[in-house]
Amino acid sequence: MIHEIHLKTKRRDEMLDITAQVQKLLNQENVLEALVVIFSSHTTAGITINENADPDVQKDFMRRLDEIYPWNMDKDRHIEGNSAAHLKASTVGASQTAIVHNGKLLLGRWQCIYFCEFDGPRERTCFVKILK
Amino acid sequence: MIHEIHLKTKRRDEMLDITAQVQKLLNQENVLEALVVIFSSHTTAGITINENADPDVQKDFMRRLDEIYPWNMDKDRHIEGNSAAHLKASTVGASQTAIVHNGKLLLGRWQCIYFCEFDGPRERTCFVKILK
Amino acid sequence: MIHEIHLKTKRRDEMLDITAQVQKLLNQENVLEALVVIFSSHTTAGITINENADPDVQKDFMRRLDEIYPWNMDKDRHIEGNSAAHLKASTVGASQTAIVHNGKLLLGRWQCIYFCEFDGPRERTCFVKILK
Repeated sequence: MIHEIHLKTKRRDEMLDITAQVQKLLNQENVLEALVVIFSSHTTAGITINENADPDVQKDFMRRLDEIYPWNMDKDRHIEGNSAAHLKASTVGASQTAIVHNGKLLLGRWQCIYFCEFDGPRERTCFVKILK
Repeated sequence: MIHEIHLKTKRRDEMLDITAQVQKLLNQENVLEALVVIFSSHTTAGITINENADPDVQKDFMRRLDEIYPWNMDKDRHIEGNSAAHLKASTVGASQTAIVHNGKLLLGRWQCIYFCEFDGPRERTCFVKILK
Repeated sequence: MIHEIHLKTKRRDEMLDITAQVQKLLNQENVLEALVVIFSSHTTAGITINENADPDVQKDFMRRLDEIYPWNMDKDRHIEGNSAAHLKASTVGASQTAIVHNGKLLLGRWQCIYFCEFDGPRERTCFVKILK
């Protein structure tokens, strides 16, 4: 059971809440108890689980990451000029693993699953593997 | 097989070694070969696997993270004022996946599983999913 | 099905592409559909999934991590003096989980699996668990 989630990002740095899309796949498959792996197939985008209540968390999140990994650094050698995005992707991680219980993603009250774009805007794909 | 580990943290930043509690759950379930996912249900706390031999590693770990993600930043917009904790949680990760072999957590000699508190003191919950 | 990958690193900071070695284990086991967990058994080395096309990405990656987590910090207390390596290991993560589909690692076009040495040169071991 492998699924794909297709996304269009609109900015260079952007967090897209994909929790509902993952839950929909679980519903379609009638999954009750499982692990689900959400995997970004890109090297300048990642997946994280963090707060979805206050959108300012996302703004602070992306601004602080940009301060730690500034886009332009004279010492960078990578010709595409997006080394910062590669670093950010590995910091949050290429994938997240979540638990499914009673047919629902077992997340904390304030948690959601974010696709993290670090070199947009682009068309992006996540793989979702459900392991019963 | 989903379990919960309940924790009380005592400081704002704290690493709690939960390896023995995870191993105890494996013993209770008589698990021999499995994957185990340890998942923090919070957005200002995470899970990491790192050294448990010298407690100074924990001190350096938390002090350096605090220097990289300072608690107070004028540019932060999030009204709760704990954006640093959200960043730290995503840096270490909401969960860790460990291998179980012959009934034991398959960790390196110096590795343990840490619950990482970044906005304590609080009462916290980890979900533990064992997949045989 | 647990396997070990043995590695010799040559420098303090080094990224070793272990994708082919993981794929070889899948081939040996005739695995078609699975999850595979690649786990570093060390506290000063980790695993990440990132770009393998331009080797300059690795150089920028390691140089930037070294700027964020400088090797020498007067405030560090850990007597081994390698706290930076512990921080880097937790930033990239002790393990990565990848999806196997039709017998192949389901990675994006530019992705590979890296063993990240942060305190070499050393002899290192990764555990690989395949979950069908």
